[in-house]
Amino acid sequence: MRLSRSFGKTLREDPADADTDSHRLLIKAGFLGQVISGVFNYLPLAFRSLKKIEAIVREEMDNVGGQELFLSTLQPEDLWIKSGRLSAFGPTLFRLKDRRNRNLVLGPTHEEVITDLVKNHIQSYRDLPVTLYQIQTKLRDEARPRAGLIRVREFAMKDAYSFHSTQDDLDKHYEELVKAYHNIFRRCGLDVIAVEADSGAIGGKDSQEFILLTDTGEDEIIICDSCNYAANIEKAESILEFDQNDQILESRTEISTPNISSIDQLSNFLDTPKSNILKTVVYITEGQLILVAIRGDLTVNEVKLSNYLNSSDLRIASDEEMVDKGLEKGFISPVGLDKFRVIGDSSIVPVSNFIAGANKTDAHYKNVNFPIDFEVDEIIDINRVQAGQDCIKCGSQLKIQRGIEVGHVFKLGTTFTEPMEAFFLDSDGVKKPVLMGCYGIGIGRLLGAAIESHNDSKGIIFPQTISPADVILIGLNQNDDTVLLATESLYSDLVNNNVDILYDDRSETAGVKFSDADLIGIPVRITVSSRTLKNGNSVELKYREDDNEKAVNLPLSDIDKIKEMIYRQG
Amino acid sequence: MRLSRSFGKTLREDPADADTDSHRLLIKAGFLGQVISGVFNYLPLAFRSLKKIEAIVREEMDNVGGQELFLSTLQPEDLWIKSGRLSAFGPTLFRLKDRRNRNLVLGPTHEEVITDLVKNHIQSYRDLPVTLYQIQTKLRDEARPRAGLIRVREFAMKDAYSFHSTQDDLDKHYEELVKAYHNIFRRCGLDVIAVEADSGAIGGKDSQEFILLTDTGEDEIIICDSCNYAANIEKAESILEFDQNDQILESRTEISTPNISSIDQLSNFLDTPKSNILKTVVYITEGQLILVAIRGDLTVNEVKLSNYLNSSDLRIASDEEMVDKGLEKGFISPVGLDKFRVIGDSSIVPVSNFIAGANKTDAHYKNVNFPIDFEVDEIIDINRVQAGQDCIKCGSQLKIQRGIEVGHVFKLGTTFTEPMEAFFLDSDGVKKPVLMGCYGIGIGRLLGAAIESHNDSKGIIFPQTISPADVILIGLNQNDDTVLLATESLYSDLVNNNVDILYDDRSETAGVKFSDADLIGIPVRITVSSRTLKNGNSVELKYREDDNEKAVNLPLSDIDKIKEMIYRQG
Repeated sequence: MRLSRSFGKTLREDPADADTDSHRLLIKAGFLGQVISGVFNYLPLAFRSLKKIEAIVREEMDNVGGQELFLSTLQPEDLWIKSGRLSAFGPTLFRLKDRRNRNLVLGPTHEEVITDLVKNHIQSYRDLPVTLYQIQTKLRDEARPRAGLIRVREFAMKDAYSFHSTQDDLDKHYEELVKAYHNIFRRCGLDVIAVEADSGAIGGKDSQEFILLTDTGEDEIIICDSCNYAANIEKAESILEFDQNDQILESRTEISTPNISSIDQLSNFLDTPKSNILKTVVYITEGQLILVAIRGDLTVNEVKLSNYLNSSDLRIASDEEMVDKGLEKGFISPVGLDKFRVIGDSSIVPVSNFIAGANKTDAHYKNVNFPIDFEVDEIIDINRVQAGQDCIKCGSQLKIQRGIEVGHVFKLGTTFTEPMEAFFLDSDGVKKPVLMGCYGIGIGRLLGAAIESHNDSKGIIFPQTISPADVILIGLNQNDDTVLLATESLYSDLVNNNVDILYDDRSETAGVKFSDADLIGIPVRITVSSRTLKNGNSVELKYREDDNEKAVNLPLSDIDKIKEMIYRQG
Repeated sequence: MRLSRSFGKTLREDPADADTDSHRLLIKAGFLGQVISGVFNYLPLAFRSLKKIEAIVREEMDNVGGQELFLSTLQPEDLWIKSGRLSAFGPTLFRLKDRRNRNLVLGPTHEEVITDLVKNHIQSYRDLPVTLYQIQTKLRDEARPRAGLIRVREFAMKDAYSFHSTQDDLDKHYEELVKAYHNIFRRCGLDVIAVEADSGAIGGKDSQEFILLTDTGEDEIIICDSCNYAANIEKAESILEFDQNDQILESRTEISTPNISSIDQLSNFLDTPKSNILKTVVYITEGQLILVAIRGDLTVNEVKLSNYLNSSDLRIASDEEMVDKGLEKGFISPVGLDKFRVIGDSSIVPVSNFIAGANKTDAHYKNVNFPIDFEVDEIIDINRVQAGQDCIKCGSQLKIQRGIEVGHVFKLGTTFTEPMEAFFLDSDGVKKPVLMGCYGIGIGRLLGAAIESHNDSKGIIFPQTISPADVILIGLNQNDDTVLLATESLYSDLVNNNVDILYDDRSETAGVKFSDADLIGIPVRITVSSRTLKNGNSVELKYREDDNEKAVNLPLSDIDKIKEMIYRQG
């Protein structure tokens, strides 16, 4: 491919609105054009990378027996009502009506459509297992598109769905997919870890996310370096420390706390650790107030709480809603408030002699003890894990890192097949719901993530497997016929040797050509100039990831050696 | 690929709602699943065919210098307002709002988006020409989806756009694309002709359609066998015969025609040919009535009329609208009706002494002559060509055939670039609008069309280039270990020799296997059975397009010979 004819120009200046390195570089290097917020056109250089990523994904999916198909973008709303996910997706679902006024949604994912399809083609256990996948555009009306290709409203996704007659078979295949996913990320040059994850709006039970660790990621990951426990913070669990084990239970007494309404203020005012204070957070879901009691130094993990309550509209109650129910904001505790549903976090159980709200203005209690002074409807683990807490698996100290989710796998079980009535006749003659797994990789996000973790001040540094080309050929002083002829002939030779090559044949200065090459980030650069030709009729080969000093000279005519050096890293 | 594991079952019965052969066969052979009217899931067998078609299209597009990219499905309505096409597409455009209430459309085609993109990347004549293409899902809310993949609401299309600095360059590239299109259709096994076409809602001037002639097509094509003139009926022109040239003009007189209001009735009542009657059709566009005067034996080509009027809402006026304006339905003519805009078809010019309405109940005029008795605002060619009329090019008799449009190319010129302000600086220092061409092929429609023209009573007969597999291997009596071993080893050998093979390893009867093979339509069938093995350790090879009699026996071990026979037709 000749750069002079390649569509998409590099920019001299950084784009104004880019919020991460990959976003900035994708725009600056001429890979993307924004149509509207979170919706992009993919220019030829981006397209070439995406096709290479897709080819890797296809190979690995075919290796685990996946069959490729293509499902519809337009989906009838009925299917989403049947699966029960219409409200779970909420405003993220693009919705529209057709000319006959039928309610449609644009597919944000395809569990509904494929379950409905499979239902018509699976009758017996003999038709199982089957693994189907597609690479297709998904549409999600994200509230906050960001970071270029990391969070977008229209994106290519490889989504796979597997169907099984036994849990054992699902479990086995799920592990095969996890391995295939690790292969895909490794082959794309990404250092990705698998973490335990919440299954969110997709549904189902077991699920793992594949995370590329990077400071600009929007996910928070809890990691134990000691035993390799890793989980998304939405899902993570820890061992909580406490040191008030042996305290004698005292009697509850009221104390005056004028204008002292936050945990911080209370901790200062009474000179007591926050872990000694009982925090009560008031939530509302489906119009009902719920009190959550948790140790004062911890925060509520709202994803865990939502999942526990099976709620799609959980939020903190407003001041008005609290006043309306007679609650005294800043001084609330479950003490004496039997009329509300109270959920206790497991952190409150071992603590004695809490400080807690007295449910009236400017007053708290000392020595509040559970379950003497208050009762709860249930005790569950809903605290948000913090760095420094102890690993649930091995007890070592946990740390938090940020990352980008580049893949997600779920054991859905019968979450979809049961409500959507996808049954099969088992070998014992009994009709059973098909067991299901689903497995997603964002193709464009993977490109964004790769660039996010492979760049320097000059531009992108592509892993060769997903680079728009394997090598960039630069001809300098091309108005010199000798150089022009040598460069053109090397270009032909390499093309004829099946080298995927980007040839900068533009009449630009050496400075522009080198800086564009660094910006675009092709992993290998070959330069032909009058200087290199005078130097024993050679060319200069340099790896993008190395410093300039490390360029090597190779004979122009030794195509085998040049090829060998190009694919040294491959 | 093993058929036992392949997803998608063949049906024993014809589907109830299929309206053409290809529709019926695609459903029956397990290629498609309908989601809603005109929206399909493509199952693995269909997917494999579609990928082969795409690969052919890509090769031919790359050969003419096309660069592949990928444009957005979500498009801001603003772009369509700017191009002026929002109303031209009307209800065919899927429209929706995002969560911030922004008006969006789902791309039915991508002239707007690509012109807006190109505008930002083309500054100078040195950036031109450039040809960009994509293979992507289009969404069109068609009023009447039909014929399986022929007219659908969601479909994959290859759409290409070329940009030029001179008309000469556009003309030259357009011809290259026409050649590339002929290559594509030939390689896909389709016998396609190029015809002159109306450019419809896409806009622009010159355009050609590529038509597969078949009785189930929805397009009508005018063809001259003598000079090869061919045009879509919407666009076709002809020489009209008339034989009243020498008549002496008589004076207009009123005659009584009680209850005689149609051309047929009038022709009978007065015993005069329909060509001697002046037909006046009343249209309405943008609230204004327009009278169209045409020879009584001809009909108005409403596409030509719409184009001439640049109207997006042209229709026949209702009875109420006519009464409202004082028009006497059944007895209308332009005589004395100066207050209306009157358009005359060129057919009325040479005719003398017309019969025409008297604009009052139960009365007509004899001897109405143009321009003595009535005037028109303009004379244009808006009659619909009929079989038997004379070719505009050579005068020979024209015929009508039905066909399926499988491709369409347009010289758009500055239709989009001018309103959307895509300018370039020419070598003479003058800023000019970029010249544009666009070129479309429906990928799925091409599959449908191929099946529509390649099938028999038993099923599909795929051209090998676009078949889901090159050969189907059938093992009979596979509970016999000798047969099983022989079939499995032939399967491995062929796979290792890069033969794309579908292996029917199911435990079905010979009858089911043969009829499924005929239904699915893989072009070559190889059968291994205890009978063929006993017959000199041979296999039986048969071409789907031939009769059963022509099966040949080949040694099981002679893979080269088997390969040669498989690709005999390729």
